[in-house]
Amino acid sequence: MTLELISQARIFDGWQRTYSHQSAATGTTMRFAAYLPPQAEAGPVPVLWFLSGLTCTEDNFTQKAGAQRVAAELGLMLIAPDTSPRGPGVPDDAENAYDFGLGAGFYVDATTTPWSAHYRMRSYIEDELPELVGASLPADMTRQAISGHSMGGHGALTIALRNPGRFRSVSALAPIGSPMNCPWGEKALTGYLGPDRAFWREYDACALIADGARVPELLVDQGAADNFLTSQLKPELLEKACADAAIPLTLRRQEGYDHSYFFIASFIEDHLRYHAEALR
Amino acid sequence: MTLELISQARIFDGWQRTYSHQSAATGTTMRFAAYLPPQAEAGPVPVLWFLSGLTCTEDNFTQKAGAQRVAAELGLMLIAPDTSPRGPGVPDDAENAYDFGLGAGFYVDATTTPWSAHYRMRSYIEDELPELVGASLPADMTRQAISGHSMGGHGALTIALRNPGRFRSVSALAPIGSPMNCPWGEKALTGYLGPDRAFWREYDACALIADGARVPELLVDQGAADNFLTSQLKPELLEKACADAAIPLTLRRQEGYDHSYFFIASFIEDHLRYHAEALR
Repeated sequence: MTLELISQARIFDGWQRTYSHQSAATGTTMRFAAYLPPQAEAGPVPVLWFLSGLTCTEDNFTQKAGAQRVAAELGLMLIAPDTSPRGPGVPDDAENAYDFGLGAGFYVDATTTPWSAHYRMRSYIEDELPELVGASLPADMTRQAISGHSMGGHGALTIALRNPGRFRSVSALAPIGSPMNCPWGEKALTGYLGPDRAFWREYDACALIADGARVPELLVDQGAADNFLTSQLKPELLEKACADAAIPLTLRRQEGYDHSYFFIASFIEDHLRYHAEALR
Repeated sequence: MTLELISQARIFDGWQRTYSHQSAATGTTMRFAAYLPPQAEAGPVPVLWFLSGLTCTEDNFTQKAGAQRVAAELGLMLIAPDTSPRGPGVPDDAENAYDFGLGAGFYVDATTTPWSAHYRMRSYIEDELPELVGASLPADMTRQAISGHSMGGHGALTIALRNPGRFRSVSALAPIGSPMNCPWGEKALTGYLGPDRAFWREYDACALIADGARVPELLVDQGAADNFLTSQLKPELLEKACADAAIPLTLRRQEGYDHSYFFIASFIEDHLRYHAEALR
């Protein structure tokens, strides 16, 4: 596996890069964005993974969150992957819906036809990409943290829950609380995994916690004016799961904020500082 | 003239809004973005205009520059207009080129057919929109500053030069130095104004300065790795014009930076603080 540098630009005295590479997990060419802070010129730096939400590519967080300024100050590498496989032969939802198929990989390894051939975002994000980043970039893989937004916020939670000890800290912005209990999740898990809900549990943060998975603590920000709050995100489900399992959850309901990158931009600094403290 | 609120989102405890309105200047429906900092809830706040570059709408600066964080701290309203008229009946470049027609109004009042019917961005930005902002938003129009990027950086310079006393401070990021002396500018001014270069001079910062227009001082940032530096932007022309006219110009050549919003994001805070100081 070799990385191809697609583009790079100077930002806050570091480098914002886009790489592409052949992925064994997805069987496609994948792209991801990497911010290398100025400190990376002197040696390996800790890594913050940021998983994006529905419809996003590696560009959305990179262009809209304003995270590089703080990452440059704190010496954090930011890795922003794409949200699904793409390209020739990769199937999409029949109606090109935004919440399934392209741009909506849900960080699962699909087991159903035709999705299982390429939609293997769990293996990609959990195994293949970390190996590639660790081997190719000045990343200190003993110091990793993970965060994300919406579908990606939930992806971050589940990846951390399934890989205890890998991440020193975990946070999310407006994450889906429990895909087994919302229309987005039910559609995606039915489509990618089939109707047997027993197979869904490893892709549901609340079910993982109920089944014994743990993280040391969680930081979650949620806009109180988020259009998807009551229909899809349901942070109260995550709140109950954490309470039942005695996982310390800091859930901040931010008055007036919606689901957009304007919300993310407003609070990403808090998340980066939270992770930098844990990564110290 | 009434404003229609198209969308709004909370960001850094203020409001990012998109408005539309019927424009008498362009004869079209125009859109602009306005950031209202938290201080605007208590009364009028000073205004920073930001004019965008080729291909942009009101969204680019709003979504990618990361300016709201600092504007919220400093209590600045940010106004980001569109870069051309759009909509039914508005002609575009025959080849849909990015550097003429839609997205490329160059902040001029066109005098040629078919452009003169709608491409009147000078009147729109210089007269109509300020009147509308002053009448409809909590803006202290006695305290205005102006900045912009590329085509819009040059637009900011020319609007300030033609309206002495209106803006307390003027800055630009990677502005076109002299459209009369670069391919982008020669194409645009020929197209919108015809071949007689005498009519171009009021739309060229260096010519305006040579003809006696003045601003108290200028701040300009320019990426040293900007792809358009030597072919289009030519900051040395502006440097010479300012030197000849004894206009204090702070021209900062930023090593490694290109023409993108990653460059703008890296230095916009300096510009906002520069303007806030003048607007105090």
